[in-house]
Amino acid sequence: MSATINENYLLLQNSYLFAEIARRVDEFQGENPDKDIIRMGIGDVTKPLSPSVIKAFKDAVDEMADPDKFRGYGPEQGYSFLAEAIIKNDFEPLNISLDIDEVFISDGAKCDTGNIQEIFDLDNIVAVTDPVYPVYVDTNVMAGRTGHALDNGKYDGLVYLPCTEENGFIPSLPETPVDLIYLCFPNNPTGTTLTTSQLAEFVKYAKENHSIILFDAAYEKFITEDDVPHSIYEIEGAKEVAIEFRSFSKTAGFTGTRCAYTIVPKELKVHDSEGKLQSLNNLWNRRQTTKFNGVSYPIQKAAEATYSSSGKAEINENIEYYLENAKAIRDSLVKIGLNVYGGINSPYIWIKTPNDMKSWDFFDLLLNKANIVGTPGAGFGPSGEGYLRLTAFNTLENTKEAMDRISKLSF
Amino acid sequence: MSATINENYLLLQNSYLFAEIARRVDEFQGENPDKDIIRMGIGDVTKPLSPSVIKAFKDAVDEMADPDKFRGYGPEQGYSFLAEAIIKNDFEPLNISLDIDEVFISDGAKCDTGNIQEIFDLDNIVAVTDPVYPVYVDTNVMAGRTGHALDNGKYDGLVYLPCTEENGFIPSLPETPVDLIYLCFPNNPTGTTLTTSQLAEFVKYAKENHSIILFDAAYEKFITEDDVPHSIYEIEGAKEVAIEFRSFSKTAGFTGTRCAYTIVPKELKVHDSEGKLQSLNNLWNRRQTTKFNGVSYPIQKAAEATYSSSGKAEINENIEYYLENAKAIRDSLVKIGLNVYGGINSPYIWIKTPNDMKSWDFFDLLLNKANIVGTPGAGFGPSGEGYLRLTAFNTLENTKEAMDRISKLSF
Repeated sequence: MSATINENYLLLQNSYLFAEIARRVDEFQGENPDKDIIRMGIGDVTKPLSPSVIKAFKDAVDEMADPDKFRGYGPEQGYSFLAEAIIKNDFEPLNISLDIDEVFISDGAKCDTGNIQEIFDLDNIVAVTDPVYPVYVDTNVMAGRTGHALDNGKYDGLVYLPCTEENGFIPSLPETPVDLIYLCFPNNPTGTTLTTSQLAEFVKYAKENHSIILFDAAYEKFITEDDVPHSIYEIEGAKEVAIEFRSFSKTAGFTGTRCAYTIVPKELKVHDSEGKLQSLNNLWNRRQTTKFNGVSYPIQKAAEATYSSSGKAEINENIEYYLENAKAIRDSLVKIGLNVYGGINSPYIWIKTPNDMKSWDFFDLLLNKANIVGTPGAGFGPSGEGYLRLTAFNTLENTKEAMDRISKLSF
Repeated sequence: MSATINENYLLLQNSYLFAEIARRVDEFQGENPDKDIIRMGIGDVTKPLSPSVIKAFKDAVDEMADPDKFRGYGPEQGYSFLAEAIIKNDFEPLNISLDIDEVFISDGAKCDTGNIQEIFDLDNIVAVTDPVYPVYVDTNVMAGRTGHALDNGKYDGLVYLPCTEENGFIPSLPETPVDLIYLCFPNNPTGTTLTTSQLAEFVKYAKENHSIILFDAAYEKFITEDDVPHSIYEIEGAKEVAIEFRSFSKTAGFTGTRCAYTIVPKELKVHDSEGKLQSLNNLWNRRQTTKFNGVSYPIQKAAEATYSSSGKAEINENIEYYLENAKAIRDSLVKIGLNVYGGINSPYIWIKTPNDMKSWDFFDLLLNKANIVGTPGAGFGPSGEGYLRLTAFNTLENTKEAMDRISKLSF
């Protein structure tokens, strides 16, 4: 006998996208210490936490100093004050009613979208869009739901739904049966969206095929257009087929503060092998109560403050700022003749590389000639080849400077 | 095709220990609204966060309000300022040297001890002490490393190492080969400890049998006696066979604040099926970077403050307070002739029930006759039958009142 490792981990592709980007940027900066690099790669916010959030955060820390108000272990699912604020502000305006115990507060949508696969059998066939947020893929590889990485950049056993210029970044329904479908709209990395009727097609597919949709709505607050659903539960019947993930990271600047939540409707049920209906809400509750101890109390109070009237106003202002950056990027790049997507309902701008350049070649060109860091589209999946992602999270000043630099390049 | 659930979840015993306790307490309180119940069941702290911790926490929140100091995504492994403080304060005094990248900061030892099994193959044979912290067992059940629950309260396929009065709560080495061994010392729930030479036996076993020890040292700060190891790495060679878990929860009152850490030494390597050595440090790093986004920055600053000279003094004072409670409990119960264990290097007191009462009967007796809530030992495993756990986390006043009440009972 001997302890043995989970060898599924060995199937993972070694070079992690952002590590390789960091390596190339460090190398360039080392050789060019005087160059002022503008980073528009990683999707991290730059605006500080808003005043209302800060106040609630500090007040709650003060409570933790007071023997009469101190909070020890909280509910693993999160405090009801926050779940109630979430339901009231994020769902009731959409005419979606939820119970408090359908809301699971966590320390991140990355954790939740990574952990959710645990409640499903290893035999489920998984579909992802391509390009895709790598966490959906990697966590299924680690669990053993895929085979080896293939030469075409895909994992054996995973179903890829391409999103490209050719199909307007609207994934087709799976052509072979799938059980779990990860969808992220507004999309990371392309910044594109589905209309209500396009998303309804997936809900219909899931109902007909007894599939579950894992819907990542982390960028919902950036939606500006009318016919873009803010929640999958705007689609009738979606509660029977979908789990939704949301986050305070990009909306309220919580990337370093950590708070998110996941909706698992009680209508969501699956037959077990004995034909008995099992509630995914119960399973996720069991997963969270067994492996998680809830989000820090002061952070939940800080998150609650994002729903106060002052908090909402402050956060909207930040989002408008980022969207203004996105518009500046779009306008500049369109002007020099590039094909540009996203950036209207999203902080992400997805650029078709000029002259069919490879993603990494365009990355190197931007780094070397304009000292701008983007993210090579190929890093998000094979259909991302020939694209590059820029984010709108830098300052407006830096964003404009970056666009000036790009505009002076000739492709 | 149809989405299917992870049916290992269905193997879990339904009635969760603390939920059943809460139900009985609520029922009693409902029928006896005038009774003043003293809760000594769940292991949650009651002392507020200490002044140094609060100050660092709030200062860090202020940084999050400042555009120049704001922190977005941090390292998934935690900030080096905290890892450095951990190494310097928790390990260097024990003559244990660690590198920063052997320290993984997280939001809880429950999460880490629950998640660690993911990096191991499903075929590993798992050993736990009995009684045991349920998370070790449940997370392996959920992963599929066990069979069904048996009538004797054990799971098929798990190896149980009994800890009882008869063996002085010193688990024997496994009699059949095992690959992963969960050890928690000072122990939850018994409050008992292993001496250095007793723990060294396990390290020797692990080396000889190529097993890995998962060592939970969450209660290390409560150690008062000399020959009790604070870290498993005090045992020579343990870095080659052990992962250690620590937490700020019970020591610094972080149960509602959330911070912990796990040590995965680089010496810890396992052969894969092709005979290649694989580093568990690499695997855990991959797990954490893929599924976790790091601990909130202000919380890491708060945790760092526990290592300042004022922070240390404040925290020691709290621990001494809890240990004084533990002593009061021990002394009172010994005086009335009960067999009592733990409570010397631990906030937990493990009581042999009088007259061979069943755990739940003694629980009911204490609740009904003395209005005291304990935790039935049977809830921690079959060898916990006939015991009950009390915790020292209440106020000294309540603790003394509780002991007065118990002392008036006749068994």
